[in-house]
Amino acid sequence: MKLSKRAELIPASPIRKLADLAVAAEKKGIKIYRLNIGQPDILPPDSFFKFLHKFPKQVIPYSHSRGELNFLNQLKIYIRGFGIKNAGKKNFVATNGGSEAILWSIMAVANPGDEIIVFEPFYTNYNSLAIMAGVKLIPIRTYIENSFHLPKREEIVKKISKKTKAILIANPNNPTGTVYTSKELELLIKICQKHQLFLLSDEAYRYYSYDGHCFISSLKVEEKLIKNDAKSLIILMDSFSKNFSLCGLRLGFVFSRNLEIIQAMYKFAQARLSASGIGQQIIALLLAKDQKFFKQINKTFLSRRNILITELKKIPDISFSMPEGAFYTLIKLPVKDSEKFCRWLLTDFQDKKETIMLTPAAGFYLTPGLGKDEVRVAYVLEEAKLKRAMEILGKALAAYKK
Amino acid sequence: MKLSKRAELIPASPIRKLADLAVAAEKKGIKIYRLNIGQPDILPPDSFFKFLHKFPKQVIPYSHSRGELNFLNQLKIYIRGFGIKNAGKKNFVATNGGSEAILWSIMAVANPGDEIIVFEPFYTNYNSLAIMAGVKLIPIRTYIENSFHLPKREEIVKKISKKTKAILIANPNNPTGTVYTSKELELLIKICQKHQLFLLSDEAYRYYSYDGHCFISSLKVEEKLIKNDAKSLIILMDSFSKNFSLCGLRLGFVFSRNLEIIQAMYKFAQARLSASGIGQQIIALLLAKDQKFFKQINKTFLSRRNILITELKKIPDISFSMPEGAFYTLIKLPVKDSEKFCRWLLTDFQDKKETIMLTPAAGFYLTPGLGKDEVRVAYVLEEAKLKRAMEILGKALAAYKK
Repeated sequence: MKLSKRAELIPASPIRKLADLAVAAEKKGIKIYRLNIGQPDILPPDSFFKFLHKFPKQVIPYSHSRGELNFLNQLKIYIRGFGIKNAGKKNFVATNGGSEAILWSIMAVANPGDEIIVFEPFYTNYNSLAIMAGVKLIPIRTYIENSFHLPKREEIVKKISKKTKAILIANPNNPTGTVYTSKELELLIKICQKHQLFLLSDEAYRYYSYDGHCFISSLKVEEKLIKNDAKSLIILMDSFSKNFSLCGLRLGFVFSRNLEIIQAMYKFAQARLSASGIGQQIIALLLAKDQKFFKQINKTFLSRRNILITELKKIPDISFSMPEGAFYTLIKLPVKDSEKFCRWLLTDFQDKKETIMLTPAAGFYLTPGLGKDEVRVAYVLEEAKLKRAMEILGKALAAYKK
Repeated sequence: MKLSKRAELIPASPIRKLADLAVAAEKKGIKIYRLNIGQPDILPPDSFFKFLHKFPKQVIPYSHSRGELNFLNQLKIYIRGFGIKNAGKKNFVATNGGSEAILWSIMAVANPGDEIIVFEPFYTNYNSLAIMAGVKLIPIRTYIENSFHLPKREEIVKKISKKTKAILIANPNNPTGTVYTSKELELLIKICQKHQLFLLSDEAYRYYSYDGHCFISSLKVEEKLIKNDAKSLIILMDSFSKNFSLCGLRLGFVFSRNLEIIQAMYKFAQARLSASGIGQQIIALLLAKDQKFFKQINKTFLSRRNILITELKKIPDISFSMPEGAFYTLIKLPVKDSEKFCRWLLTDFQDKKETIMLTPAAGFYLTPGLGKDEVRVAYVLEEAKLKRAMEILGKALAAYKK
C-alpha cells in the first residue's frame, strides 16, 4: 500500500514543525515569546462578540456556494474602496480562508505537471498547496540586500517555459515584508500579458503597509494596462484572518474581473458546498461597521515594526531588510544552520526562564541550501514583549557563538 | 489565456443548478417545497446557541492544524462508541466539512491520472473533487431493483486496472439511501487487500439507518480482517453537518488506524493552517453533552421516510427503492428527461401556487445516458409538508403526461 507521490512530497510546515519542542520547553516552566507564526494578538472588533452573543435560534444551513448575498455585497464595497472599478457581486467567490483561495487559483490555471513562477523566499504553503494540486513551483531568487524586491525583466522571463501558466506573488509579502511598487506590478502584468500567463495576487496583508510604501493592488495597476475585463489575467486571493484579527474564522475570497475565472471558481466552490455562513455574516457586519479597525491595527503594527528595527540594530553581526509591509522580516544570522539554532533556543537556551521561538527560513526557499542562515520574525507581540524578545535574541546569539 | 483542463471539466452541481429557476418562481409568488438538497430543517442542540451566547472576549487564533485537543479527545470517544478499538487522538485530523476530508483522501492515495472506483449512482461531488485532484473516477453500476446494493465480486474486480488506487463508498449512501451490510463491506475490504487498494469510506450519514438496516462502520468490519493497524487500508471521512444539523458550520474529520495516512493528512492540514477553532469547540461540546440528539433525529427521519414511502406508493407508474438509511431516495419517473421535468416544475407547473424542487439524477451517474428518468428526493421536510410535496409530485406527473 503506497500513498500518492504528493502525499510523500508535501513538506511538514517549517512554521509549525518546532511546535513539539515548544510544548516540551513550556512543560519545563520556560516562557516562550512566539515570533514564529503570523498570529496577531489583537482582539477582533467588538461587533464580532456582540454578533455571537445575539445569535438567533435558527437552522444553520449551507450557505450559497458562491457566498452569502450580504457578504458579497460588502466585498464589492470593500474592493471598490481600493479604487477598483467594476467590482460587482458576480466577481467574487467566498472561500475557507485565504488558503482555499490559493489552492483553487493554482488549480484553475494549471494542470498537473504545469509550472507556476514564484519569487523566493515565498510563503511556504504555496509549495504545499501546489504539490497537492500536482503543480510545480519555479523559484526566482530575490535578495535581502535589495529588500527582496523583484529582479529585472530578463531574470523573470528566462524562467518561463512552455509549462508556465502563472506568476504567483504575495503583496505585501510574507515572509519578507516587501511591498511591491506599481512599477514592479506593471512589469509583472506586462510579462503575463506577453507570455499569456495568469497573475495570482495574494493580498492578505493589504492593510499592513508603512511609511511611503503604500500598498497598491495589482488590480488597480492592471486597470490601466488591460481595459477589457474579459481579458484580465489577475486572480486576487484575499483573507480576513489578518485584517480583522480573525485567523480562526477561516474566511477569505477570490476576486477576478475575468468572469470565466470566477465561473471555474464557483464550480470548485460547489464541489465543497459552501464556506461558513456564520463567518460570512460576521465579516459582512464588520466590513459595514468596523473599517476603522484597519487603521488602528496598521498604526499598532507600524509602531511595533519601529521598535523591532530599533532593537535589531543593537544586535551585532546580523542583517535584515526594513519591512515595508505585512508583519514579518527575514534576518540573516551569524549561524550556519538556523534551524539548529531555532531548536537550540527551545531545548538548551533560556534567559531568566524565558526564550523565543523563530521560524527557520530555509522552508521559504525552494532552492536547496538557500536561507540556511536566515530566520523569519513575525512581530505580532506587544511592544514591551517585543523588546524583551529581541533582547533574548541578542543574548542567545552571543551565547550560541561560544 | 486558457484555464486548466480541470477548470473546464468540473461540472456545475446538479443539486444546485436549478437554483436560479427557483428564485424566479418565488419571485412570481410560488411556494416551493425543497426536496433537492440534503439540508435538514431541524434546529441544532440548544448547547450550540448557549455556547455562542456566552462566547468570551478573546483572540481568535488559528487552531492546531491537526485539530483542537478537546475536539480530538471527543472524536476519540465518539468513534470508540461505534465499537472501534484503538482509536486515539493521533488517528484524527479535523477538516473543513466532510468535503475537505474527501478531497484530501483522494489526494493522499491517488496521483494525477490515477483511478478510483465508485458505485454509480454516487454523490456527485466525488467526481468534482476527483477532477480537482486530477484523478479519474471509474463507475460500477448498481441497480434500483437491487436497492442499489453492491454487485458481485467479479463485476468489481474486472474494473480494477494498474491505475486503480482505491474504492470510494458512501455508507449510508447518498443518493440511494442504501446501507451496506457487513458482508458487502467485508467483500470490499478483501478486494482492497488483495489488489492493494485503499478503501475511502464516507460515513457522514452514520446516524441515519432504519429498521433492520443497522449501520456498521467499515472500520469495525476491517478490525476482524486486518489486525495490524499499520496495514489498515481504510480512510474514514466524516462530518457533523448532518448528525448535528450543522451544515453551515463546515466541520468534519478524517480518521485512519494507519498512521502513515494520517501523517499525510496532517501535512495537507498544515498547508491550509487550520479548520475553524470555534467550530471545533462547538462540536466538542455537543459530542460531550448532546449525543441524545442523534437518537431524536434518527426517529424523526424514520417517521418521515415512512410517510414518504406511503405517499409514493399512491403515485402510479413510478418505482423507487426503500431507503435503508441517510435521507434520500431515487425515484424512477415515467418521463424521458427528468432534468426537463424538474425545470418544468419550477417554470410551468403549480398547484394552488405551490410546487416542488427535485434533483435530476443524471448528475449522480458518470455513464452517459444513465439516470435520465430518475430524480433524487431528500426527505428533509416536516411530515405535513412532505405529504403535501408528494401530493404535488403526483399531480405534476399527471399533468406532465398530457
